[in-house]
Amino acid sequence: MNDSIARTLQKIKPLDREAMAAARARQDELTKPRGSLGRLEELSIQVAGIKGQAVAGFEHKAIVIMAADHGVVHEGVTLYPQEVTAQMVSNFLNGGAGINVLARFIGARVAVVDMGVASNLPPHPVLICRKVAYGTKNMAQQAAMTYSEAVRSIEAGIEIIEAEIAKGLDIVGTGDMGIGNTTASSAICAAITGEPVEKVTGRGEGLDDRQRMHKAGIIHKALELNKPNPGDPVDVLSKVGGFEIGGLAGVMLGAAAHHIPVVIDGFISGAAALIAAGLSNELKNYLIAAHLSAESGHGVLLEYLGLTPLLNLEMRLGEGTGAALGMAIVEAAVKTLAEMATFSEASVSQIEERDK
Amino acid sequence: MNDSIARTLQKIKPLDREAMAAARARQDELTKPRGSLGRLEELSIQVAGIKGQAVAGFEHKAIVIMAADHGVVHEGVTLYPQEVTAQMVSNFLNGGAGINVLARFIGARVAVVDMGVASNLPPHPVLICRKVAYGTKNMAQQAAMTYSEAVRSIEAGIEIIEAEIAKGLDIVGTGDMGIGNTTASSAICAAITGEPVEKVTGRGEGLDDRQRMHKAGIIHKALELNKPNPGDPVDVLSKVGGFEIGGLAGVMLGAAAHHIPVVIDGFISGAAALIAAGLSNELKNYLIAAHLSAESGHGVLLEYLGLTPLLNLEMRLGEGTGAALGMAIVEAAVKTLAEMATFSEASVSQIEERDK
Repeated sequence: MNDSIARTLQKIKPLDREAMAAARARQDELTKPRGSLGRLEELSIQVAGIKGQAVAGFEHKAIVIMAADHGVVHEGVTLYPQEVTAQMVSNFLNGGAGINVLARFIGARVAVVDMGVASNLPPHPVLICRKVAYGTKNMAQQAAMTYSEAVRSIEAGIEIIEAEIAKGLDIVGTGDMGIGNTTASSAICAAITGEPVEKVTGRGEGLDDRQRMHKAGIIHKALELNKPNPGDPVDVLSKVGGFEIGGLAGVMLGAAAHHIPVVIDGFISGAAALIAAGLSNELKNYLIAAHLSAESGHGVLLEYLGLTPLLNLEMRLGEGTGAALGMAIVEAAVKTLAEMATFSEASVSQIEERDK
Repeated sequence: MNDSIARTLQKIKPLDREAMAAARARQDELTKPRGSLGRLEELSIQVAGIKGQAVAGFEHKAIVIMAADHGVVHEGVTLYPQEVTAQMVSNFLNGGAGINVLARFIGARVAVVDMGVASNLPPHPVLICRKVAYGTKNMAQQAAMTYSEAVRSIEAGIEIIEAEIAKGLDIVGTGDMGIGNTTASSAICAAITGEPVEKVTGRGEGLDDRQRMHKAGIIHKALELNKPNPGDPVDVLSKVGGFEIGGLAGVMLGAAAHHIPVVIDGFISGAAALIAAGLSNELKNYLIAAHLSAESGHGVLLEYLGLTPLLNLEMRLGEGTGAALGMAIVEAAVKTLAEMATFSEASVSQIEERDK
């Protein structure tokens, strides 16, 4: 394992139990029946454990969107042409995509990263260029990338999140763009969870039954040819992954190392979480699953990771759109803990002794 | 039926099909796979149908919280003492309750209404006093209120929402406070949906199994004694309802009459929606169910109303806390429709012809 990744993994510590106990104690003093804020209570406690103390809100929020292309598109597994990846990166930079609208709505900045788009993108002040290569190779014919490229993609993610932290960052959401990346994510999901390919292969941007069967067949072929080793997440990433998926895994690891909660988006972010969680046992405590994507493998991998999604709005856009909404829920949660009055402050009676 | 209620019912029209078709057409032009924003797309279209056109956002948002007491608390169906209703109204007025935190978070004002708290509340600039009586009668011994009180509570709700509309209102959320009001809501739910009392009677603020059985027994007794007529929602309200429930039904009807979307909170707002929807067939098109409450009857009544909740965060606080989060999701939805770039604006390729 590369040194910078190893150093990051060492910095990912268990959550702060004392801070969590203090947050739980305060939740139980707030003017509401115990537990009546449901998952908001859990979230506020998790965030206290991540940060080492309860927080009043999130001043600095960012969504990191990583884009890359996938050689497997040459197998006809997608409906949109490959150039849409680059076109959508322009859309992100111009503020016209779904994630731009939702990031503005929640007051988050957007960092757009070229991890491996197949064409040269014109320079733009908001675009971070960390191109590992011009798209992956076609995994149905060879490994998607070399082992060293896989390491470099994770490393890039760590460096990018550290640069964002240097600008001020209290919570981060992950997002992705890459035509063909549900194919890579399904392959990662099958390789790591051991679930059947058919179960974790979805409709992407709208495949019909026949097209979905074809996609599953390509994933089968890629797995048989490359034989990814489920015990080595970097090997899985290199054989059937993508540069944006490696980058997002790095973002998650780097954020956790710096006590930043990570709200993960849908299926592609989930595949990145599988890679990252395979490298660090503690990582999943720093992750919050924003939503259950309509993509069929997503529920499978969240269950494998032991994460329960906050939202189920039948979204399947990616880009971090689910993460943005999830971040709003997390912020609502920490604000209730910080701002609600306690029973004694508000002179509200508690449950009568006779009924306890 | 009272004249002012009848006039309101006449003003509740079918949604604007033309505005909905235009919103759907624009959704399909936005830079995303069709349908990939899931329920956000549906919400943006519903709001366009309610308002007669797509909107850019909600400048004026309000949560109307209605409070009242319930005579049935004398049967020992609750854990908290009755004075908590008045104490929590003070907490709302002082800004320390869960709903205050979440309303501030989403930028909504809060209107607090005394529909029938059992004590005199000190005057406060934010408190709207529409006390129908000092709490309902004990429904296990007699009707909760007279038919005329039931009509007056609905009427008060209509007048209150019309006053809020006069201040500027683009979307409203409903909330409640009333020790004992899950008992009334379960009774309404059983009476109108015809489902068994046991199925729609939950744990309220935290009843154990024995206490929940006792509560269900009291509801049985009240239904047998009062024989509410499911064909007459005002009769149901008068026999086993509450003043805040009638008021919230009036808020829903009045909002719909003025083309204002209503985000309904949990079980108590749901019971109010059962009353209101029984008076107007068109009403439910104006309602958005914010979340699935942990209270067991809530899913039953939402299904009866044909509403699918946006969120499931295991919340059961009431006050409009679920509605506040739901309103944020609805606003996110209308903003994606208003602000996202279209394929042609962003020069993004659509699905290739060969694959269509």
